[in-house]
Amino acid sequence: MEGKDSFTVAVDAMGGDFAPREIVKGAIRAAQENGHKILLVGDESALEVELSNYEVGKLDIIVVASEGVIEETDNPIRAIKEKPYASVVQAARLVKSGDAHAFVTMGSTGAAMAAATLEMGLLDNIDRPAIGGPLFGGLSRTVFGGLSRTVLMDLGSNVDCRPSRLLGFAALGVAFARVIQGIENPRVGILSVGSEEGKGNRQTKEAYPLFKESNLNFIGNVEGMDILLDKADVVVCDGFVGNILMKYTEGLGMALLKHMPDLLGASLPAEISAQISKKLVEMTSPAEVGGGGPLFGINGTAIVGHGRANGENVAQAIIMAENVVKGGLIEAMSKELAALNQLG
Amino acid sequence: MEGKDSFTVAVDAMGGDFAPREIVKGAIRAAQENGHKILLVGDESALEVELSNYEVGKLDIIVVASEGVIEETDNPIRAIKEKPYASVVQAARLVKSGDAHAFVTMGSTGAAMAAATLEMGLLDNIDRPAIGGPLFGGLSRTVFGGLSRTVLMDLGSNVDCRPSRLLGFAALGVAFARVIQGIENPRVGILSVGSEEGKGNRQTKEAYPLFKESNLNFIGNVEGMDILLDKADVVVCDGFVGNILMKYTEGLGMALLKHMPDLLGASLPAEISAQISKKLVEMTSPAEVGGGGPLFGINGTAIVGHGRANGENVAQAIIMAENVVKGGLIEAMSKELAALNQLG
Repeated sequence: MEGKDSFTVAVDAMGGDFAPREIVKGAIRAAQENGHKILLVGDESALEVELSNYEVGKLDIIVVASEGVIEETDNPIRAIKEKPYASVVQAARLVKSGDAHAFVTMGSTGAAMAAATLEMGLLDNIDRPAIGGPLFGGLSRTVFGGLSRTVLMDLGSNVDCRPSRLLGFAALGVAFARVIQGIENPRVGILSVGSEEGKGNRQTKEAYPLFKESNLNFIGNVEGMDILLDKADVVVCDGFVGNILMKYTEGLGMALLKHMPDLLGASLPAEISAQISKKLVEMTSPAEVGGGGPLFGINGTAIVGHGRANGENVAQAIIMAENVVKGGLIEAMSKELAALNQLG
Repeated sequence: MEGKDSFTVAVDAMGGDFAPREIVKGAIRAAQENGHKILLVGDESALEVELSNYEVGKLDIIVVASEGVIEETDNPIRAIKEKPYASVVQAARLVKSGDAHAFVTMGSTGAAMAAATLEMGLLDNIDRPAIGGPLFGGLSRTVFGGLSRTVLMDLGSNVDCRPSRLLGFAALGVAFARVIQGIENPRVGILSVGSEEGKGNRQTKEAYPLFKESNLNFIGNVEGMDILLDKADVVVCDGFVGNILMKYTEGLGMALLKHMPDLLGASLPAEISAQISKKLVEMTSPAEVGGGGPLFGINGTAIVGHGRANGENVAQAIIMAENVVKGGLIEAMSKELAALNQLG
């Protein structure tokens, strides 16, 4: 890796529904438009075929050979043992070795987590990586007016959580809100069924005093509607609740899209209908707007996007990777976790 | 109570944000339009003032005196002890005594549950009442095209649940889907983070085999998006998850309404914008469309509506009460619970 302004990213060219075609397209776009150096990790012959469709002479793209792909349906831990040179593992290895600042994948989230954990390691006081981000309207706070910059986490990685783990999520989310969203002193809330301290299930009731005694800017419990009403900047829940909310939001976009004619009747001009449809899909699939989000808790930058990603999404995910690295997100997360630990 | 076609309902005239004015208005409407007999429960002098605004001579409306109101902020159990003649308790008592077929309230859900449990009792194999219904688009399956007839339960009453309690929710939900929505053999799913049997948290993983061995038409786990995509007719979760999803959906309507200009830009004609706004609020607040929903698990009919209910909502809630009674929902619930119990 060269000077401080250069940015090198390892791209898992074999992960995702439209790999390697759309991944290569996105990588080339990132190299062309932003001058990124790309380590394209995948099956050499397949990548040569894809690259032969483009004028790549002047671009900083290097093919790095890998063997095999970890599929969405594979058990991640077992698959990594069986395919130690799979594309996503090789990509993570390039970050560990210092050859890349970050890796980006559109493949299985479980595989990305396992590979990143194994190769890059976890931050202190973290047992397992987490996933976080706004449910709505893109990863940056400025997309779509005031809607839902609120970061929700965990979104599915930690399904059963002891209450103290929610504290760790909060620290990671605060760093994200500060570095990526530019919020100075992010407000933290616990997702629950009522705003009073006594309201909630066993998990949130036990978590509440831990949050109150922490150094976090804790505003108390928040309810389901508050995620969308700018009550807090970071809202924590276990991965069971978060994953259901994330997929519910996605389903909402799909269902509204499908039923728009029934819902709005014939009175809507086709042009406006198309405009609303586009916004709906964008709003309810933040990963498709932002390209992808970082794995939280990894000691390094790993960006995971949507399996359906196209070239544009891949290019956006690479920009997200650059923002994470240049913004110092991992260092900020490490600092927040340490501050938490000093008190408790 | 007279012949089999007559319908007598006790209406808690003091519960709700706009009580007694809007409650009285709705009760009068129900009496006028549907010939319902109304037992209007509340403060006698306040009700006389309200009734003096209408021509009630020919209507079958009787004022039943009560003392005090249980507020949203009161602890329901304690409040019932302190105010044993509060309007909602008196209304439940009228069902127990056989003077009314059902009661309807727009007051505190907790108070309605406590009053109904205390006065009317619970069905066999039920520890605590539950709340259920579609998250979206009204309580009947035909409102708003194919959108979300799916019944989700529990919506907030049972926050920490052992896995077997989810089975009881399913039985109650199946009866609701059959009687109120007209679905012959309702498909039942467990809300989880993946469709395979092994996916979920401890609670859903333990519940899965119980469902598999039951007499329910169990289709397995469903994910967040499936609630909206007609994958199952009844989806069960604990009241923590259900309450968050319900309030998230409400918040969605509010947030989209607020940000519509940012989202859709100036290109949308005011008339269409108003039309979309109206649909949004209706869609995301089923209680406002249906007027209210029954408490599940009570040995009798208790309908609880939204605190913000207006006269029209109250009249709709009374129609819901009639549908529940005439459809035999409570008997159907009792039968489903017994069938479940015979097997396990």
